[in-house]
Amino acid sequence: MPAFLVTMADRAELEQAVAQQGEKVRKLKQEKASSEAIAEEVAKLLELKAQLGTDDGKHKFVLKTPKGTRDYNPKQMAIREKVFNTIISCFKRHGAETIDTPVFELKETLTGKYGEDSKLIYDLKDQGGELLSLRYDLTVPFARYLAMNKITNIKRYHIAKVYRRDNPAMTRGRYREFYQCDFDIAGQYDPMIPDAECLKIVHEILSGLELGDFCIKVNDRRILDGMFAVCGVPDSKFRTICSSVDKLDKTPWEEVKNEMVGEKGLAPEAADLIGEYVQNNGGLDLIERLLKDSKLSQSKQALEGLNDMKIMFEYLQLFGVTDKISFDLSLARGLDYYTGVIYEAVLIQNQAEPKQQNDHNEDSVSVGSVAGGGRYDGLVGMFDPKGRKVPCVGVSIGIERIFSIMEQKAEASEAKIRTTETQVLVAAAQKKLLEERMKLIAELWNAGIKAEMLYKKNPKLLNQLQYCEETGIPLVAIIGEQELKDGVVKLRVVSTREEVDVARANLVEEIQRRTSQF
Amino acid sequence: MPAFLVTMADRAELEQAVAQQGEKVRKLKQEKASSEAIAEEVAKLLELKAQLGTDDGKHKFVLKTPKGTRDYNPKQMAIREKVFNTIISCFKRHGAETIDTPVFELKETLTGKYGEDSKLIYDLKDQGGELLSLRYDLTVPFARYLAMNKITNIKRYHIAKVYRRDNPAMTRGRYREFYQCDFDIAGQYDPMIPDAECLKIVHEILSGLELGDFCIKVNDRRILDGMFAVCGVPDSKFRTICSSVDKLDKTPWEEVKNEMVGEKGLAPEAADLIGEYVQNNGGLDLIERLLKDSKLSQSKQALEGLNDMKIMFEYLQLFGVTDKISFDLSLARGLDYYTGVIYEAVLIQNQAEPKQQNDHNEDSVSVGSVAGGGRYDGLVGMFDPKGRKVPCVGVSIGIERIFSIMEQKAEASEAKIRTTETQVLVAAAQKKLLEERMKLIAELWNAGIKAEMLYKKNPKLLNQLQYCEETGIPLVAIIGEQELKDGVVKLRVVSTREEVDVARANLVEEIQRRTSQF
Repeated sequence: MPAFLVTMADRAELEQAVAQQGEKVRKLKQEKASSEAIAEEVAKLLELKAQLGTDDGKHKFVLKTPKGTRDYNPKQMAIREKVFNTIISCFKRHGAETIDTPVFELKETLTGKYGEDSKLIYDLKDQGGELLSLRYDLTVPFARYLAMNKITNIKRYHIAKVYRRDNPAMTRGRYREFYQCDFDIAGQYDPMIPDAECLKIVHEILSGLELGDFCIKVNDRRILDGMFAVCGVPDSKFRTICSSVDKLDKTPWEEVKNEMVGEKGLAPEAADLIGEYVQNNGGLDLIERLLKDSKLSQSKQALEGLNDMKIMFEYLQLFGVTDKISFDLSLARGLDYYTGVIYEAVLIQNQAEPKQQNDHNEDSVSVGSVAGGGRYDGLVGMFDPKGRKVPCVGVSIGIERIFSIMEQKAEASEAKIRTTETQVLVAAAQKKLLEERMKLIAELWNAGIKAEMLYKKNPKLLNQLQYCEETGIPLVAIIGEQELKDGVVKLRVVSTREEVDVARANLVEEIQRRTSQF
Repeated sequence: MPAFLVTMADRAELEQAVAQQGEKVRKLKQEKASSEAIAEEVAKLLELKAQLGTDDGKHKFVLKTPKGTRDYNPKQMAIREKVFNTIISCFKRHGAETIDTPVFELKETLTGKYGEDSKLIYDLKDQGGELLSLRYDLTVPFARYLAMNKITNIKRYHIAKVYRRDNPAMTRGRYREFYQCDFDIAGQYDPMIPDAECLKIVHEILSGLELGDFCIKVNDRRILDGMFAVCGVPDSKFRTICSSVDKLDKTPWEEVKNEMVGEKGLAPEAADLIGEYVQNNGGLDLIERLLKDSKLSQSKQALEGLNDMKIMFEYLQLFGVTDKISFDLSLARGLDYYTGVIYEAVLIQNQAEPKQQNDHNEDSVSVGSVAGGGRYDGLVGMFDPKGRKVPCVGVSIGIERIFSIMEQKAEASEAKIRTTETQVLVAAAQKKLLEERMKLIAELWNAGIKAEMLYKKNPKLLNQLQYCEETGIPLVAIIGEQELKDGVVKLRVVSTREEVDVARANLVEEIQRRTSQF
């Protein structure tokens, strides 16, 4: 039963109780009962009245969304729809299918996939039955899906919300509930062809969204590991040193070196050697140079990575996207499951937040990153009972970040966003025309025209026109006694105020003609 | 659902059964029950364990989605997209905006809104911070959103997943995670205009989806309550008698009467009076008759409801939808928050599941209902600190049910559904043309053509053509040494095998021309 009914019921009961108790007291007084007895009942009465006084029948709710989450209002939804359309049409242009998975998974499906970050997983309360957790990303559910359905080849995108009990920085587009937008190619294919297509897709999407200039940094997990090996990093320290290198985009080398040597006990010489390598970035030229590098070329892993990187750059040239792509030895993405090429796209100069350009804290830089991904050939095997591997490469578009840039741009610009697509308002010039408006609007709806009318019996024409101004409806179909006699509708263009009588039979066609550009 | 998944589900259930049986035995022992009783239960336990033991040897990672949930594969997603497009374009045609809300709300936001059903709410584990629950429907979050943002007027749709710890009947489209698809009009307007538009929308959507013949039953909460009053139902019994009436679509009157009289202690005469009323259904004629009904017309409430029903039917005639709409006194929707008109759309004869036509259990009938809604003028006020009311009327489309009908139809029909929109495959006639394929496909992508190529250096032409057959790609752009020399591409129509040389400069235009109908 809804709460307001409950309180009303409680309240009614309470009022009744007060009345009865009052009656009782009156009786006792009539019966000249002992003052103690009367006092006792009066006390009860006052108590009841007090209760009634406090409960004013209204509810004091905390009116908010949970920490780190937000509602999308119609304006934000309009922006969201625009962004999704750009991205999805790119995925479809590349022949991707799409899938969806439940918002929660068996807890055990997620355990052991996120290392350190597992503490950020939302668990569901144990209410009997299975133990569940909200998905933390779309990659692990994708791997579970492939293994469960024994799928060895698929090119799919998946756009859905994921959940992390992280410290939100919502102004910068970091939430606890946020969209991920993943495109992945699973299957055993000839080297670097799918990898190159993923980068082509990032290039197309970031260009299409017109977010300003961007750069896609690429590296390879094997080159990183090889580099660590030849620099004298003990295997046991690969991962932790890798995460230090990962900070180089936001932290100066000296600090990173101190962390490596001071905190993580790496030999200073090793750190210095790493320091020389990670300063490098470029294209094919750099790859060639490193292939000849006396030290690095001693690492079989590094050579594999460099040779594949070379192949990929040749493909990227054929795709015509090398202008935005930089082979950067300092790129080391955190996630453990990457096994080959890794990449990350950053906005080079973010007009949307100039204030942050020289601001070097975690957030302000991390928000610069709008896409990232890489190759993960081992993950699916973790789910397969027989450990069968399904090589995968994919990219995740940082769509929340893109939303907030778009929202800021929208606020900045004058042009106001429409939240509906209504083509025409059906209006009346005089009173008593509700029935005629209804007949006309039904005709328009049935013909596929997007039409609205005010939900009033006798709206003023001025109010109807104002509604169009406010909501951006371009046309008004006005009917009055005269128009009905003449079998026409007065079609008014809101922007120019031009009015023209259109034969009812031609109205649909005329509206379509005039709104085709909208 | 693949058999493999079922066995996983069975196994999970089996494990649960073993646990429960073990608990039972432990209890009996604690309670010092008779040794026979204990022996009996132990026997059951051992049997269960034996069943489990069969494939228990190496306990593996259970590869499944949580109970009552499912993945959507690409085919299902294609159907889902088609259904959504039909529904969303109808909502937009009626000038609706859209919003989104978080998947979870503060627990207290949901408390006291669902009465009995509260036990079906998914709570999140208390991991510190706020207590959260997964949304149970989209209506309460909508009311919270309106109150929180002090919105008094909006026409919005919201399509999103909601969560109920219910007993799933997945083959019939009943899940624990499922989509709701709501359209609501909030605001103080002239009577029955928005209410009638909601029914027009249901009519448009169900017609557009071509689910077969349907009927929209309408009634009014006030007419029901008035009817109960004049039939001599005590106020205290309104709700429970209402829920009995609610069963009339699936239970014969005699049973319902027994429940009213036997279980719920209603006077038999009262039940009989109700029985006469609830048999009635029709249109304006019935409304007129009931307005003159000597008994019913004594109820102020009933008269209000009947007069509004009359106005609405006049509007529905203007909208031209009365053919599918029936005023039905036996319609009594469960939800407490309805305050005025209520409605429910049912598929009259569901070809998709003929086997169920004479099958009269809860599921088989409830699946017939594909949309429902009504007016709820009190809900938003519950959230407003000052109790300000925002009248609302809305409809919820039973989209999961519609998905499963569509999926069954798709399986039945020969026509196979495409899961991609790829227009052309870029293929090579000979070896060593990977680079040329990459150059060409990049040209096509950049021109907005949906194109794919096989991720192989030297694919056989036959395999490339087979790939088109399998995935339904209509065109193949074939390049070979000769074509490169001549500056042309051989464009092949997969269905007819017709081939034509197209000048490279005209290729994009030619592909667009030939695929415009796809």
